[in-house]
Amino acid sequence: MASNNINKKAILLVIDGLGDLPTPKTALQAAKKPNMDKLAANGITGLMSTITRGVVPGSDTSHLQLFGYEPRKYYSGRGPLEALGVGIKLQEGDIAFRANFATVDSSLKILDRRAGRIETSIGKALELEIGMQIEDVQVIFKSSVEHRGALVLRGRGLSHEVSSTDPHGPGNVLACKPEFESPEAVKTARIVNTFTKLVFGRLNNHPLNKGRKLPANMVLLRGAGSYKNVPDMNERFGIKAACVAGGALYKGVARYVGMDVIDAVGATGTKNTDLKAKGNAAAKALSSHDFVFVHVKACDSFGHDGDCKGKAGMIGRIDKELIPILLKTGAYLVITGDHSTPCSRKGHSGHEIPVIVYGKDERKDGVKKFDEISCMDGGLGHLRGRDIMPIILNLIEKSKMYGS
Amino acid sequence: MASNNINKKAILLVIDGLGDLPTPKTALQAAKKPNMDKLAANGITGLMSTITRGVVPGSDTSHLQLFGYEPRKYYSGRGPLEALGVGIKLQEGDIAFRANFATVDSSLKILDRRAGRIETSIGKALELEIGMQIEDVQVIFKSSVEHRGALVLRGRGLSHEVSSTDPHGPGNVLACKPEFESPEAVKTARIVNTFTKLVFGRLNNHPLNKGRKLPANMVLLRGAGSYKNVPDMNERFGIKAACVAGGALYKGVARYVGMDVIDAVGATGTKNTDLKAKGNAAAKALSSHDFVFVHVKACDSFGHDGDCKGKAGMIGRIDKELIPILLKTGAYLVITGDHSTPCSRKGHSGHEIPVIVYGKDERKDGVKKFDEISCMDGGLGHLRGRDIMPIILNLIEKSKMYGS
Repeated sequence: MASNNINKKAILLVIDGLGDLPTPKTALQAAKKPNMDKLAANGITGLMSTITRGVVPGSDTSHLQLFGYEPRKYYSGRGPLEALGVGIKLQEGDIAFRANFATVDSSLKILDRRAGRIETSIGKALELEIGMQIEDVQVIFKSSVEHRGALVLRGRGLSHEVSSTDPHGPGNVLACKPEFESPEAVKTARIVNTFTKLVFGRLNNHPLNKGRKLPANMVLLRGAGSYKNVPDMNERFGIKAACVAGGALYKGVARYVGMDVIDAVGATGTKNTDLKAKGNAAAKALSSHDFVFVHVKACDSFGHDGDCKGKAGMIGRIDKELIPILLKTGAYLVITGDHSTPCSRKGHSGHEIPVIVYGKDERKDGVKKFDEISCMDGGLGHLRGRDIMPIILNLIEKSKMYGS
Repeated sequence: MASNNINKKAILLVIDGLGDLPTPKTALQAAKKPNMDKLAANGITGLMSTITRGVVPGSDTSHLQLFGYEPRKYYSGRGPLEALGVGIKLQEGDIAFRANFATVDSSLKILDRRAGRIETSIGKALELEIGMQIEDVQVIFKSSVEHRGALVLRGRGLSHEVSSTDPHGPGNVLACKPEFESPEAVKTARIVNTFTKLVFGRLNNHPLNKGRKLPANMVLLRGAGSYKNVPDMNERFGIKAACVAGGALYKGVARYVGMDVIDAVGATGTKNTDLKAKGNAAAKALSSHDFVFVHVKACDSFGHDGDCKGKAGMIGRIDKELIPILLKTGAYLVITGDHSTPCSRKGHSGHEIPVIVYGKDERKDGVKKFDEISCMDGGLGHLRGRDIMPIILNLIEKSKMYGS
């Protein structure tokens, strides 16, 4: 059961892609963020490498690591995390893929990798057409936002050691190939290739695709992974944990480690996400949980777009709309990112990410501002992602003593 | 043989439970400690996590780690360390427990877990009554201070994988249970349960318990561990090491790693310990040893009591009575703690602990004071416990080169 004492609860706010490079200011330096600066001035700060120094983290491994789940031990591909995120209930041994609708011609040449970013409602309506049985394997599909979704193969003798059908660029739908000549991988590749053929047949002349310039007549697969049950955060750390996020992946990682995923209406994982709704959902979740993970995606998206002004503006929105609600709860507050997404690079990088640890009775350092440069002088020094969960457990007095 | 050159010797002073939280000052910040501040100003400082960031260390694992003995490899429960500490000579395979006298009624309901904190002399006098033979197993008991002691089972086919008889709260003496259904664990649990029955019979009507309101008529057991010989510090690091400590556990860890334990009259491990006697014993030990570990327990005890004023006062006493004697030896001086025991928490925490490394010819940083906040800017940065012994070996030029 979760504690009733707010002094023993914590919020971890992950601002996706937070870290940046100076061009000439980083997004954090350019942002108007009086609340975060006040937290930095009244808390303890530092810099963090989610994996190890210089390593460029993926979004999946970085979140696993932040939650105290070493990717080396607990990561088995992105597919299962996406599938959990879209709401498929996985069983041990399921093989899951990230999936997306695409438009192909009759020779399976890809005309649009995103089927013209089809409406979410069309994706949903096509879901049932895609579910099927191939040999003794059940194929389960669930769409999420626009062209995105996840596909699961459930049956005996399957393997995640198969290649993608998504060429990630111009070309034809790829044949799925076993990465090793194991009977399991051979069978899985055969099932996937049959699926590619059958799904085109079912979708190409589907009424919902009638008249569409870019019909959603193919489902491309990538990121195969094999699902396994892992001990949840309650079992490992003795805490009840909740997640407030928009994006499917983040909900998926949260479900994988046993968090309750809280639905916040308007939390979309996009640039227009309703930050107040997220804050309120997090505050509410604290009444029944020890730990709440709050995820804001859009800074990463602005980084990928190279839009530094947009990224700084989004940080300003978080500062104004989200932080005050989180702060008002009275819980410990840890703010960081999962990786850097420098606007000048339009992609993830291995640069360290600033961190604030704030609690009324905690140690303070001399840092006055929250940004990549100020936090170089922080009292936490240089952390790794694996340090975050032990630090949080120590804050809320849920650590198990090592020794006696 | 130990070196004769005092420039190649070092003292490690461990102030137990040293680290604290600001309420609004930490104990170190509140203490009058001109000598430690002078050492900080003329030495190099930093912060240390004994295990890793945020992890809350026990007293046993933290000391093993400070001495360069990774708990993961070298720790096998608290019992053997306590038994070594009270002076029982252990043999490979011995099963040892922490033990304490308690008062029970005839249904073995615990009336007082500490038998009214019986006098140390009574505990000593009862020692022989508790030693016994059960089946082919020899039961050895030695008392230490007040109600405390250690119990050892010596014989074939025993296991430490058994539960405690001490409920650590109200209730009856617990039946000892095997944690696994191995013949060794089953046998050990049976011996322990027979012991519980026999020891009550021997003590309950013992003349020394006549007329006592809270007779010492039970011995509760916990922290079972299996003793194994480990390579000593001389073998591993090529140094002759000595220990000056009051508390049994610290002497036990020291003996476990092969230190000579020096008796300092008046070194009690309590708040009234004779710090000058400890300093003089350490100074004397340096003539025949390369490395002397000095342990002061009381700051931890004040932390557990939530007595910040007492903790600050004890730091002041250490500064005034102990540090000058240690400094006068001319040896390198490393000062730190084994973990934080914040007065506001009344227990161990995973917060970092400040460290000073001082030697006349060593590097200095810009830090002028010895406390948790000042040392955030220290030139040593953020250490782990495992770094301490290599740093000391490097100071005294006893490191073995890694490579060539």
